[in-house]
Amino acid sequence: MSAALVLHPDRLFPADPSTRSVARRLYELVEHAPIVSPHGHTDPRWYAENQPFPDPATLLVKPDHYIFRMLYSQGVKLEDLGLARKDGGPVETDPRKVWRLFAQNFHLFAGTPTRLWLDHVFVTLFGINKRLSATSADESYDIIADKLARPEFLPRALFERFNIEVIATTESPLDPLTSHASLRTSGWKGRVVTTYRPDPVVDPDFANFADNLRQFGEITGCDTTTYAGYLAAHRSRRAFFRLHGATATDHGHPTAQTADLSLPQATALYDKVRRGRPSAADAELFRAQMLTEMAAMSLEDGMVMQIHAGSMRNHNPLIFNSFGRDMGADMPTRTDYVHALKPLLDRFGNEASLTIILFTLDETVYARELAPLAGHYPALRLGPPWWFHDSVEGMTRFRQQAIETAGFANTVGFNDDTRAYLSIPARHDVARRVDCATLAQMVTSHRMGEDEAATLVVALAGSLAKAAYRL
Amino acid sequence: MSAALVLHPDRLFPADPSTRSVARRLYELVEHAPIVSPHGHTDPRWYAENQPFPDPATLLVKPDHYIFRMLYSQGVKLEDLGLARKDGGPVETDPRKVWRLFAQNFHLFAGTPTRLWLDHVFVTLFGINKRLSATSADESYDIIADKLARPEFLPRALFERFNIEVIATTESPLDPLTSHASLRTSGWKGRVVTTYRPDPVVDPDFANFADNLRQFGEITGCDTTTYAGYLAAHRSRRAFFRLHGATATDHGHPTAQTADLSLPQATALYDKVRRGRPSAADAELFRAQMLTEMAAMSLEDGMVMQIHAGSMRNHNPLIFNSFGRDMGADMPTRTDYVHALKPLLDRFGNEASLTIILFTLDETVYARELAPLAGHYPALRLGPPWWFHDSVEGMTRFRQQAIETAGFANTVGFNDDTRAYLSIPARHDVARRVDCATLAQMVTSHRMGEDEAATLVVALAGSLAKAAYRL
Amino acid sequence: MSAALVLHPDRLFPADPSTRSVARRLYELVEHAPIVSPHGHTDPRWYAENQPFPDPATLLVKPDHYIFRMLYSQGVKLEDLGLARKDGGPVETDPRKVWRLFAQNFHLFAGTPTRLWLDHVFVTLFGINKRLSATSADESYDIIADKLARPEFLPRALFERFNIEVIATTESPLDPLTSHASLRTSGWKGRVVTTYRPDPVVDPDFANFADNLRQFGEITGCDTTTYAGYLAAHRSRRAFFRLHGATATDHGHPTAQTADLSLPQATALYDKVRRGRPSAADAELFRAQMLTEMAAMSLEDGMVMQIHAGSMRNHNPLIFNSFGRDMGADMPTRTDYVHALKPLLDRFGNEASLTIILFTLDETVYARELAPLAGHYPALRLGPPWWFHDSVEGMTRFRQQAIETAGFANTVGFNDDTRAYLSIPARHDVARRVDCATLAQMVTSHRMGEDEAATLVVALAGSLAKAAYRL
Repeated sequence: MSAALVLHPDRLFPADPSTRSVARRLYELVEHAPIVSPHGHTDPRWYAENQPFPDPATLLVKPDHYIFRMLYSQGVKLEDLGLARKDGGPVETDPRKVWRLFAQNFHLFAGTPTRLWLDHVFVTLFGINKRLSATSADESYDIIADKLARPEFLPRALFERFNIEVIATTESPLDPLTSHASLRTSGWKGRVVTTYRPDPVVDPDFANFADNLRQFGEITGCDTTTYAGYLAAHRSRRAFFRLHGATATDHGHPTAQTADLSLPQATALYDKVRRGRPSAADAELFRAQMLTEMAAMSLEDGMVMQIHAGSMRNHNPLIFNSFGRDMGADMPTRTDYVHALKPLLDRFGNEASLTIILFTLDETVYARELAPLAGHYPALRLGPPWWFHDSVEGMTRFRQQAIETAGFANTVGFNDDTRAYLSIPARHDVARRVDCATLAQMVTSHRMGEDEAATLVVALAGSLAKAAYRL
Repeated sequence: MSAALVLHPDRLFPADPSTRSVARRLYELVEHAPIVSPHGHTDPRWYAENQPFPDPATLLVKPDHYIFRMLYSQGVKLEDLGLARKDGGPVETDPRKVWRLFAQNFHLFAGTPTRLWLDHVFVTLFGINKRLSATSADESYDIIADKLARPEFLPRALFERFNIEVIATTESPLDPLTSHASLRTSGWKGRVVTTYRPDPVVDPDFANFADNLRQFGEITGCDTTTYAGYLAAHRSRRAFFRLHGATATDHGHPTAQTADLSLPQATALYDKVRRGRPSAADAELFRAQMLTEMAAMSLEDGMVMQIHAGSMRNHNPLIFNSFGRDMGADMPTRTDYVHALKPLLDRFGNEASLTIILFTLDETVYARELAPLAGHYPALRLGPPWWFHDSVEGMTRFRQQAIETAGFANTVGFNDDTRAYLSIPARHDVARRVDCATLAQMVTSHRMGEDEAATLVVALAGSLAKAAYRL
Repeated sequence: MSAALVLHPDRLFPADPSTRSVARRLYELVEHAPIVSPHGHTDPRWYAENQPFPDPATLLVKPDHYIFRMLYSQGVKLEDLGLARKDGGPVETDPRKVWRLFAQNFHLFAGTPTRLWLDHVFVTLFGINKRLSATSADESYDIIADKLARPEFLPRALFERFNIEVIATTESPLDPLTSHASLRTSGWKGRVVTTYRPDPVVDPDFANFADNLRQFGEITGCDTTTYAGYLAAHRSRRAFFRLHGATATDHGHPTAQTADLSLPQATALYDKVRRGRPSAADAELFRAQMLTEMAAMSLEDGMVMQIHAGSMRNHNPLIFNSFGRDMGADMPTRTDYVHALKPLLDRFGNEASLTIILFTLDETVYARELAPLAGHYPALRLGPPWWFHDSVEGMTRFRQQAIETAGFANTVGFNDDTRAYLSIPARHDVARRVDCATLAQMVTSHRMGEDEAATLVVALAGSLAKAAYRL
């Protein structure tokens, strides 16, 4: 028999009764606050087309790199999870079998955020009351499959049920934004905005970079064979994205390196990378220069800039060659910010009208680099814990290590940063609970009054994000 | 209406009632212990001249880089805080307006040590009973201004009220130590000692280095155009500082790099840096060599050596050019100790009669480098958490990460390291409370007896510092 | 009078009463579980010859680098602790005097794991009821000396009393494994296995490397003047070790660097290092290549591979020259895994039948590198906190930083990794208590059910280690 599955109302709160009481009171203030999701990777077609989601495995297992990463690490083959091979080789096609394989390994997630998110989804969305296991696999599959077919589980219905005030998706400059365009004219009231993520035309190591530049010229009508034309193409495309709701850009670079080259230097560098096969140093320098160029454009057009630095993509060549990008094989690396950001900050760091939100996969920089930088430069803000660190312990460390130097006002609330649509309420709930726990401990240790904690918990649950992202 | 401001007697103690009880009992042992302040930056003229402090803004806001850094990060202009521009350009001159600007932004400090320190000052020194805000700004300004004019708020009266047993200031070798000299003959009983901080004549990147060397020769009567004469000048000046109470030197270097060059190598290097515009590598090597030379002199004259490594000074050129040094724009950097200190340690690390106190802005070295080094080398001790890490969470991390390997005896108690004179009791109080909290948790988890915790808390509150600094 | 010494039944458990109750219940499940010790440094002769242990100082003080390191850091001379000088110079020979010196400094260990381990030994093995101090030194010496002479304190009797299910020792490939061989035929039921630690013939910086290679050829009958013969010698010796129970290899390298050279490159490199005085880069590259070769052999013969990376050995030349290796002067260094392991992982990381257990002295990699790597690659597992981090706070940090990404299943339970035989039950007890504390906090914060915690605590206490090490 499977164990019962219930969500305890006090989950993630401190055990000490007096602290827990404070946490409960704070949580009451934000439990039902609307969701502000200023950065994420949901598919805008869901909202535009409002079609039913597929079966449980295809919706919940196959696209979730947290899940298949863990299963793979314990010897489960990605083929057996139904993930598509690049060579079209055979993979499991029966979603129920994939679900069973997942269910029989669900115990692996004990102590992980995936467990918290999924249990929340199972209980609150699907009314499942048994912990997922081999025994309960079929029953939960049937419940989920049944519900997904119902109108109240269509993307727009869930959007409203989730109480999403605004959600941002993330697109390439080469994306025609068709879904966003049709949303604008659909009459539906849900607010879905895009985000300008120019990596495909900024990172010379991106697949098909030369071809991307060519397309970039075509869709903007700019001559991307010259640096001036290339920059003009960015300006044009940023304006197009702003027409589709964008208030922010996003930059996923291997490092946080920035540069501030002279125009002749930058022009010469662009010629090198455009012609293909630049050296690793030239590719890095070009990405670095482009962060500064993007900041310059942000100062012009008011778009908030996000830097997600420090992921070494596609660490595992076997997986990359067989299955492609984003297969759970990206690895964090040690990342410097104090030296790396200096060229950009020398030029724009003192601009109070510019907002650059910094993210890291290297927690050692929270107290040493990010909080001191954000606690000084008007242009800088700190994004929430990202990816591997978007977890109870990870968020707690961020608060403990960044707040004393940066204060709360130099942070921007929560990002769910996910394409796992159903888990969005769960993720915000975890973040809110951790904030309540952290603030409650500050209250019971008399570092702040409960009235101040109440103000802050509300800000962290939404208004800080709206202000920082200009939403 | 402003919120009430009270200092809770249990602030910073653990919430668990049994642990809190232990913490309370430990705190009773040190609450009123005299303050030992072996390293800091108060102005010796205060004690020598005993003149009233200026208005609230000039005393509490304008010199405090923790405060104006945070305000600046949120868009407040330094000019509006009345900070002097190098070009003499216009800045706010009305201290009450500066105070109001600070007060209306005081909420930014929620969760920071500045908040804890200032609330302590407001309540214990000035009897203020409202939390600082735009509403309470004028009232608090008037209260503080009124008190500062009274004789019991003169520097010496506060020194006695603060129960300071001894305080160290920090001076350049080029400083004539006039105030210290007049203090010696003043008949006042307060113990104020100087500290030898030779950066201006040791760091080739220091402003006016060549001129400093020339002055260094003049005031010591040594020929600083030769390396031998330069070293003799240090010996002479160290002796002069010892006559003015110094028991310690202090070295603020960008890295902890040390070197142990042969005499011909060191002589040639000195010639290079003395002539100006040395390469970055030569400047670094000279600083490195000088740490070892200073250790050699410490072995001769018994002065304790402090190394404050890892700050990248003046990260923000706009601020540096407009306002100068020490304007909240210094940034921590990743700092190595295990390799960097080896040349010095190879020569002097085994000397039990030498004491070198290590500080870091890079917390990642607590458990990995500093505790293992100090837990082995007789010459090494660990200084308390410094600067950005002189905070509740920062001190807690230091205890959690360093003590298991280094033990308490290889640490040296607390430094307030401040020029914010009025906050000194607050800072020692925070440190003592965090020590009580840490020790109480060790007691309730049965890692030590309460009798041992009682001995340790008293040592951490004073005797460890006195012993380590030979005061 | 000395303070009383008792072991509190709730030691190391959280203070909060509800969490403590859960911890107690979990602890009941593992308190008496057999000890699985898959990696350590006890002397196989103890079990083979079963002779009485020597006096208290020679058994408990002189071989324990945690102890003499701390004493040395506070000015105690190693000669006064009776440690043998390489030059045969005079050292203390009276064990009682050594014991007294240790006892009068025992307070230095307050807050350290050494204190926890020794108190456990004193109470549970020797029935001592006074805290060790100058006052109680002689009494405790007499009690211990008396007990050590009794048959129930012989190595095998203790093995049984300790309830050791299996223990691994660690030997050089040049070791004849005489004790293991005699154990096999002794009729005694205790399970003692060896581990293949080839550093002496893999690390060109190892003392007498050339001579070691020659011997390696002799004992295996392989021609170690050629790379092929050298690899064959490893294969042969690994087989010999497996005959003596080995299921694992162990590699203690200064870094985690791996390489995957072509055969001609590797052959040429071997020729260079074999001839002596290779460059530092060549030595590093050879060690790197050998990790990959060892992984290849592990895939053939099924031996589990342990990598203990990041110790800078013999940091203190005075101590090394006077007393030799392993004298408490090894220092952790910053260690990279994401880049360093890539050559090996590119080749073997996806092999689910290979197990490589990673250890670090650089805690900053737990969340940033090790957990993401182990949470993806089937071949990787995370070893427990090592050396300086084998402590209450260290183990807690490991759980907090690694589990959310790696899960429990990618960890391998506990290693005592010690040659301090008497402390083995204490070390496992500390680890079990910390696991109970960690899991209890997960239960009371409703991150997992108590039933799940019960399953996990049992796994962490033994079955995870048995599975990972194939014991």
